[in-house]
Amino acid sequence: MPEQARPILAHDLARSLGGVYQGPEGLVLSGVATLEEASKEDLSFLTNAKYIGLAKESKTGCLLIAPEHRDTFEGPKIVVQTPYLALARAVRLFYPGQESEAGVSSLAFVHPKAWVAPSASVGPFCVIEEGARVLERARLVAQVFVGRNVIVGKACLIYPHVSLLDGTILGDRVIVQAGCVVGSDGFGFAFDPDSKAYEKIPQVGHVEVGPDAELGACTTIDRAFMGRTLIGEGTKVDNLVQVGHNVQIGKHCILVSQVGISGSTKIGDHVTLAGQVGVVGHIRIEEGVVVGAGSGVHGDLKAHRTYWGFPAVEYKRALVRHGALERLPELRKRVFSLKQRLEALERRLEEGGCGHSEDPG
Amino acid sequence: MPEQARPILAHDLARSLGGVYQGPEGLVLSGVATLEEASKEDLSFLTNAKYIGLAKESKTGCLLIAPEHRDTFEGPKIVVQTPYLALARAVRLFYPGQESEAGVSSLAFVHPKAWVAPSASVGPFCVIEEGARVLERARLVAQVFVGRNVIVGKACLIYPHVSLLDGTILGDRVIVQAGCVVGSDGFGFAFDPDSKAYEKIPQVGHVEVGPDAELGACTTIDRAFMGRTLIGEGTKVDNLVQVGHNVQIGKHCILVSQVGISGSTKIGDHVTLAGQVGVVGHIRIEEGVVVGAGSGVHGDLKAHRTYWGFPAVEYKRALVRHGALERLPELRKRVFSLKQRLEALERRLEEGGCGHSEDPG
Amino acid sequence: MPEQARPILAHDLARSLGGVYQGPEGLVLSGVATLEEASKEDLSFLTNAKYIGLAKESKTGCLLIAPEHRDTFEGPKIVVQTPYLALARAVRLFYPGQESEAGVSSLAFVHPKAWVAPSASVGPFCVIEEGARVLERARLVAQVFVGRNVIVGKACLIYPHVSLLDGTILGDRVIVQAGCVVGSDGFGFAFDPDSKAYEKIPQVGHVEVGPDAELGACTTIDRAFMGRTLIGEGTKVDNLVQVGHNVQIGKHCILVSQVGISGSTKIGDHVTLAGQVGVVGHIRIEEGVVVGAGSGVHGDLKAHRTYWGFPAVEYKRALVRHGALERLPELRKRVFSLKQRLEALERRLEEGGCGHSEDPG
Repeated sequence: MPEQARPILAHDLARSLGGVYQGPEGLVLSGVATLEEASKEDLSFLTNAKYIGLAKESKTGCLLIAPEHRDTFEGPKIVVQTPYLALARAVRLFYPGQESEAGVSSLAFVHPKAWVAPSASVGPFCVIEEGARVLERARLVAQVFVGRNVIVGKACLIYPHVSLLDGTILGDRVIVQAGCVVGSDGFGFAFDPDSKAYEKIPQVGHVEVGPDAELGACTTIDRAFMGRTLIGEGTKVDNLVQVGHNVQIGKHCILVSQVGISGSTKIGDHVTLAGQVGVVGHIRIEEGVVVGAGSGVHGDLKAHRTYWGFPAVEYKRALVRHGALERLPELRKRVFSLKQRLEALERRLEEGGCGHSEDPG
Repeated sequence: MPEQARPILAHDLARSLGGVYQGPEGLVLSGVATLEEASKEDLSFLTNAKYIGLAKESKTGCLLIAPEHRDTFEGPKIVVQTPYLALARAVRLFYPGQESEAGVSSLAFVHPKAWVAPSASVGPFCVIEEGARVLERARLVAQVFVGRNVIVGKACLIYPHVSLLDGTILGDRVIVQAGCVVGSDGFGFAFDPDSKAYEKIPQVGHVEVGPDAELGACTTIDRAFMGRTLIGEGTKVDNLVQVGHNVQIGKHCILVSQVGISGSTKIGDHVTLAGQVGVVGHIRIEEGVVVGAGSGVHGDLKAHRTYWGFPAVEYKRALVRHGALERLPELRKRVFSLKQRLEALERRLEEGGCGHSEDPG
Repeated sequence: MPEQARPILAHDLARSLGGVYQGPEGLVLSGVATLEEASKEDLSFLTNAKYIGLAKESKTGCLLIAPEHRDTFEGPKIVVQTPYLALARAVRLFYPGQESEAGVSSLAFVHPKAWVAPSASVGPFCVIEEGARVLERARLVAQVFVGRNVIVGKACLIYPHVSLLDGTILGDRVIVQAGCVVGSDGFGFAFDPDSKAYEKIPQVGHVEVGPDAELGACTTIDRAFMGRTLIGEGTKVDNLVQVGHNVQIGKHCILVSQVGISGSTKIGDHVTLAGQVGVVGHIRIEEGVVVGAGSGVHGDLKAHRTYWGFPAVEYKRALVRHGALERLPELRKRVFSLKQRLEALERRLEEGGCGHSEDPG
């Protein structure tokens, strides 16, 4: 039950995408689909050479294809430098989305000392507390919490049940998926040796999220102890990710689902952390690092390298380590066999009376 | 502070459960409890032979027991083929639950173009958007979000703070625990090599959940890029689980807490993934597979087999690998000792002038 | 955008913290900051000897310092036994927080048979169901769900989008971060061999949380099958943690983010589980245990010991195992070299005609 797509002339589409159309005049496309599922009215896409065969068998009406593969497909096509990027833009053209009406629902609560831009949209049962500001064209779908002195940037899109707690700053065009929590207290406690209990260290910092970032469903970003926790411009955070207090994440990073980052760690630009990666606190991951799924990062990582494993080491080393582990049972057998052969030699030398008579130890 | 149980005659209970009662006439049971905690008025249960001793010492008034164990317990008992299943049904009889009144709270928001069955129940601060349909006897406890064109099947039970985002389809009798998000955007971005930024690929598909499925608290199910993400009939998903876009999960699967499944992976029927298992995208897990807790699944898995480890391999192989790893420090010592003995032999041959004089290399 | 701090005389601060001030009369401090960021008007803190150099270079106006380090810092200082604990208290003095007004928002729903103390504060769009009790000075920020017969203890602080489901009991001063779910159904199903489907086992127990505990954002605590799931007094639970049904957690424990604990496991007092640790069901972790990040716990753990790894073993053993694994590729090479040298010896003995002529095998 997706939204209805609107039809587009293939020729117009190519022009919008900055590509070159090769095919019959007047071809109309009515949607986007994968190679397997595309019909004669759909646009499809070839983003990986290994699917060239699949493309040939596809019923697609038109194909997004890179210059280097253009000759592998005979049907109508739009030739573009980066088909995957063109796909993102094509989908947006076919499915422009529904406009939401500007204005504040009569069922929302807006504190008298909060400010909502007239072009913004605030749905039912939202709460906007004192001193908060919701900027132009921002949209709060429904049941969103906006705490004291929060700033929601221009054209932000905030889904239901999101909590933006006191002092949070969202840059322009930030998207926050449902159930996400921004600005929960950092996890800081001091142990009292007298009472044998933990005493809470008040967390008086805040969270700042750069423009064009996206935060996933049920993801939690803790406020700083002091100062700020930072999610950089354009960084995309998937669902169920934990970001601890005072973490600094650079620009255009990718944090896949269920990643956890402990407090005060610093992450450079263009870093990718795959699913379920855990990162300890107070370390530095330099720009361009990639960490494979499920890894545990226990120390600093060097720029533009790939890491994997528990604990994470450089990928090539991890592969060697893992290969050796896979063959460990065989290695054990070999060692046992060597031991037997060595003992046979020892006995033979002993019995044969060859060489000196001292004890071989 | 559980609900109050209602008393039941042991004889009636046995008949309801399709079992055979052996015990005094007129025995009344007033609740269910574990073997350790049961009093003379409670029903208890023996679901595992290793607790036969515990059953003998229990003060329970009556025991659910399988035919093969019936002779191990002398007190009143109800003999049933599958005591654990009978337990599930017995609990339901003792604790029938409170009926909620049908009707829409005056504090809920229902769009004029949405439809709520008269027998459904919609609690305070729920939001039901345009085109949504809430079918017969469905219950939305409170503060639930139901997006555009969502279908909530008959007799569904939706707990507070659940988000059912645009286009979601729930089959009949689906249970969704509090804070669960169904239909968040899939995590799809195209890297723009010019701007060095990621561009969002609009996610225009939806989520479909089969009848009798259950989704856990703060679990997140992403909508498909195109088409649908599918949770099969009767599949039970625990808390804090992540299901990526276009994942297809079969019928009657068990996904334990904190499992993460990346996009487009296909999972057959009757698959069990234990806690914290991570599964990469675009792979196939065949029917009847079991994966042990904490495993990382990096490739296809064959039907009806058990896997474990990081990365996951077949269970027997994982045990051998793990056993070899456990004894690796000892193996190192043995190799070092072999090296010393070998060197002693080499020296002895050298010194003893035995054999030829060429260099042993 | 943190709250504004209020200025305090260093002399008064020292007295409040039970410390000794050494510095000029009349010094006024206007906030707290780290050693790197502190200005001449800030209080800073030395909690670890390795930062003594950093302290010397800091521009801080005054330093919290332990008696054993007092001579390493020449500027104004407050000497206290435990600087980290004093820090917690100092922050509270500088940032006393805003008082919330007592009373129930006119936009909240309170069941006629629920009770809210006059000194409690209930924000907009909260739901308080039949039989629930919100005790003195408790604060429900906004959009909180309080189910049937729930008790919210005195001075509890409950953030937005928290679900406290039927029967939950919170002790006094409990803090619950946004999006947390307390009392979701335990994950219990009985497999029906006839229908090949799972049947839900109704979960009729509840959750009890001791005084001074804290529960993190989007953390989920399942209700017991029967009886109670228990979080002990003073225990601090971070974000995105899963606690299964009937788990019993002792007092003053620390559960770091993304930990998962399966059903019926018992955890003693003063246990620390670091981030992403997974614990299987039905085991016992004794008091004072520490488990390192990312570990998988598959069996009972002994009191006051430290464990690590997958599966978790005692820390020293884990280090040896891990060190051996790291050097495994080299071990393989060594074994191969030994094999070659052994074979050379065997050939030499054979060819040299030394000793007997039997086959060395």
